[in-house]
Amino acid sequence: MTTVYFGSGWLSDKQNQAHRDAMQAIETSPAIDDRLHSYVPLEHQYKDIRVDQHPEYAQDTEWSSATFNGDLVGIKTTDITLGVYIPEEEDVGLGVEIGYAHNLGKYVLLVIPDEDYGKPINLMSWGFADNVIKMSALKSFDFDQLTYDYYAGSVY
Amino acid sequence: MTTVYFGSGWLSDKQNQAHRDAMQAIETSPAIDDRLHSYVPLEHQYKDIRVDQHPEYAQDTEWSSATFNGDLVGIKTTDITLGVYIPEEEDVGLGVEIGYAHNLGKYVLLVIPDEDYGKPINLMSWGFADNVIKMSALKSFDFDQLTYDYYAGSVY
Amino acid sequence: MTTVYFGSGWLSDKQNQAHRDAMQAIETSPAIDDRLHSYVPLEHQYKDIRVDQHPEYAQDTEWSSATFNGDLVGIKTTDITLGVYIPEEEDVGLGVEIGYAHNLGKYVLLVIPDEDYGKPINLMSWGFADNVIKMSALKSFDFDQLTYDYYAGSVY
Amino acid sequence: MTTVYFGSGWLSDKQNQAHRDAMQAIETSPAIDDRLHSYVPLEHQYKDIRVDQHPEYAQDTEWSSATFNGDLVGIKTTDITLGVYIPEEEDVGLGVEIGYAHNLGKYVLLVIPDEDYGKPINLMSWGFADNVIKMSALKSFDFDQLTYDYYAGSVY
Amino acid sequence: MTTVYFGSGWLSDKQNQAHRDAMQAIETSPAIDDRLHSYVPLEHQYKDIRVDQHPEYAQDTEWSSATFNGDLVGIKTTDITLGVYIPEEEDVGLGVEIGYAHNLGKYVLLVIPDEDYGKPINLMSWGFADNVIKMSALKSFDFDQLTYDYYAGSVY
Amino acid sequence: MTTVYFGSGWLSDKQNQAHRDAMQAIETSPAIDDRLHSYVPLEHQYKDIRVDQHPEYAQDTEWSSATFNGDLVGIKTTDITLGVYIPEEEDVGLGVEIGYAHNLGKYVLLVIPDEDYGKPINLMSWGFADNVIKMSALKSFDFDQLTYDYYAGSVY
Repeated sequence: MTTVYFGSGWLSDKQNQAHRDAMQAIETSPAIDDRLHSYVPLEHQYKDIRVDQHPEYAQDTEWSSATFNGDLVGIKTTDITLGVYIPEEEDVGLGVEIGYAHNLGKYVLLVIPDEDYGKPINLMSWGFADNVIKMSALKSFDFDQLTYDYYAGSVY
Repeated sequence: MTTVYFGSGWLSDKQNQAHRDAMQAIETSPAIDDRLHSYVPLEHQYKDIRVDQHPEYAQDTEWSSATFNGDLVGIKTTDITLGVYIPEEEDVGLGVEIGYAHNLGKYVLLVIPDEDYGKPINLMSWGFADNVIKMSALKSFDFDQLTYDYYAGSVY
Repeated sequence: MTTVYFGSGWLSDKQNQAHRDAMQAIETSPAIDDRLHSYVPLEHQYKDIRVDQHPEYAQDTEWSSATFNGDLVGIKTTDITLGVYIPEEEDVGLGVEIGYAHNLGKYVLLVIPDEDYGKPINLMSWGFADNVIKMSALKSFDFDQLTYDYYAGSVY
Repeated sequence: MTTVYFGSGWLSDKQNQAHRDAMQAIETSPAIDDRLHSYVPLEHQYKDIRVDQHPEYAQDTEWSSATFNGDLVGIKTTDITLGVYIPEEEDVGLGVEIGYAHNLGKYVLLVIPDEDYGKPINLMSWGFADNVIKMSALKSFDFDQLTYDYYAGSVY
Repeated sequence: MTTVYFGSGWLSDKQNQAHRDAMQAIETSPAIDDRLHSYVPLEHQYKDIRVDQHPEYAQDTEWSSATFNGDLVGIKTTDITLGVYIPEEEDVGLGVEIGYAHNLGKYVLLVIPDEDYGKPINLMSWGFADNVIKMSALKSFDFDQLTYDYYAGSVY
Repeated sequence: MTTVYFGSGWLSDKQNQAHRDAMQAIETSPAIDDRLHSYVPLEHQYKDIRVDQHPEYAQDTEWSSATFNGDLVGIKTTDITLGVYIPEEEDVGLGVEIGYAHNLGKYVLLVIPDEDYGKPINLMSWGFADNVIKMSALKSFDFDQLTYDYYAGSVY
């Protein structure tokens, strides 16, 4: 049973929509025990405090360190780092997660909304991605037989 | 003698200006043998082809793999990964480099233009940064006695 | 199903008691297939020779290397490195295991006897611990949803 | 349920025979969900092209990079790197896989045909092997209780 | 020019004496640029606050995280992790540093006071030590030609 | 000043000749402090015993572990892992070193005798090589500006 770390942004409507789409696809995947063994960072903010709603925590090193370390726990304790990846709204935080996950030997899967698939993505994300698929392909993605493939799109 | 990998964007005027400022500061640093032993990605594009000037290479896996691997060589063969970091124009590629550099045990130094210092940066970049300084402090930064410190600004 | 490496000392009565308490708690944990998939170093001494009972092996590099490598196998092939941690009897060997486990991306869980919880622990153990809990909380610890938290005690 | 990466050569009759023997042994092992969760490199050549049958791909960096990265995916996403190891036909590719797998914290198991067991093997393979067993012992090898042991043979 | 991270305890007179002896030996070593490029943790406590003198910081996560990360910077940015190692006063913090340093590929050198050399040390420290020497041998230790050797003493 | 680990075989005349050629080229390289800071495994066999001359050590775990760990010290404490690589006599031990060196973030340079350059090499060696050059190019190879490039030859 494969487990998944969900790396995705939550700063725009498009990011939130893509996040929901990916969550839904994963929920129907037979190989993923989705609610029990996966890690969604927003569900693990330290003390359940979201800094976007409580800006007074934005300079609190206790909150910052704990939430940051929580995300690392998510990557460390799951098999796959799944990045919900939007070419024109690339997220530096997801970038950090990709570089970190790669070096721990995690499988890095980028999922791009269908309408954006093919658009240029950053070369560094491209290089550590083990596979880059369309959102609509996530539902039937074979998590039991993970393989390598290139992004069928361009880089910049 | 310390060597530096230069991670920075080149997609906006601001990024280019910050890159030049950082290069200049490094050139005057007594601890850095700057031209000889540092690595600036744009000087190492495969076959000296810049994809922004030759968009036909944007889907060429040979060019992409080589340029990507060249950047990894830069990080691997230098002591410090210096990220020229602009809070409101954060770069996903630099994010990947930060995550990768951290796991290899490189010292990660983020340099922020003075006028942007203090603005919120992504939590994941914050977490792997060993130090986050102002551009004006780079010139006299003590590369011989590397230390850890927090960003004197906020995260999001 | 989560698997656990058991790092603990066996040099004092207190260490042995804490070890037994932790083993018992793990045995009742629904998420841990305890006897089958966990690794208890004392059960894997090379050739079943315990050096405390056979001091003639204390300078035998064959025995030492094999037993040492066996412990690394235990850490490598399990999901969690659980350290039975006694503040006033900290064990250097457990320290080595914590540092090693962290770098392989293992979740590091320290378990402290209830009566000692809160006492100062070494800063380096503190820094790599993903969570530090009371012995009495181990039984119901949620191994399916691993999270990060600070030690509710002090460091030295 | 343990998963296995199959590292083995396919350049001689002996290598092919040993590969088939190992596959067969694994298929009957109760601890291995062999067809579903294991990775056999030859089944994952990029675009299903085998370079020995299509020598025109021998200088194609797209094919080479993808097939190479596919092998790394195999090692990363499985628990054990099993090397079918023939002392007098040692394979440099398997050597690379052993070194890589070790550093990611994978358990490295070398399996040697019974008639060759005991013959000298390279010191570097010896050093990263967590266990070296006879082909006939693979069938009943306890994948649920992985342990360390030396090669009962010599090195060169 | 080799650089050194100084891992040592400061909790007993014996530890402090051994620390001073090692510092002195290093200062006279021609291969070590000792004051400029080495890292002594006690000189890098966050905000120059020593928690033994300011116990009110013992539960301050900001101070703890920064000091802990400072020690990691010390290990990351130097070539050798030198542990001043006292067999009967083994330090869990040094243990963590040894495990961490090993995995980053640092050379781990343990230095034991002459009068304690030969006494049993913990098996896990033994296993990651690249060399274990007497204090009196440190002065003339060849830092330019680092080699591997066993501890000429016993383990427990 | 760059330091080099010399990975090469010594089992055939061709390997020995190539090794000598590479050593000679390195000795004249201005960027390499060759005798002082490089590591040649054959010069570091444990107790100066070569197992090819003393076959009674071929099953001695003390000798084997120490010599193996010595080679790892060589890779860890140098900047570049240089493999003297002979396409038709590929060495499994060098393979292990390449995989290990890659994961520690070392620059992997393969040097092939001129008359063999272009011949097929194993895909796994190809994949971790940062550069693959002709023996005649080693003398003037720019060790101060390490770059990535493909093998101008084929793989199998």
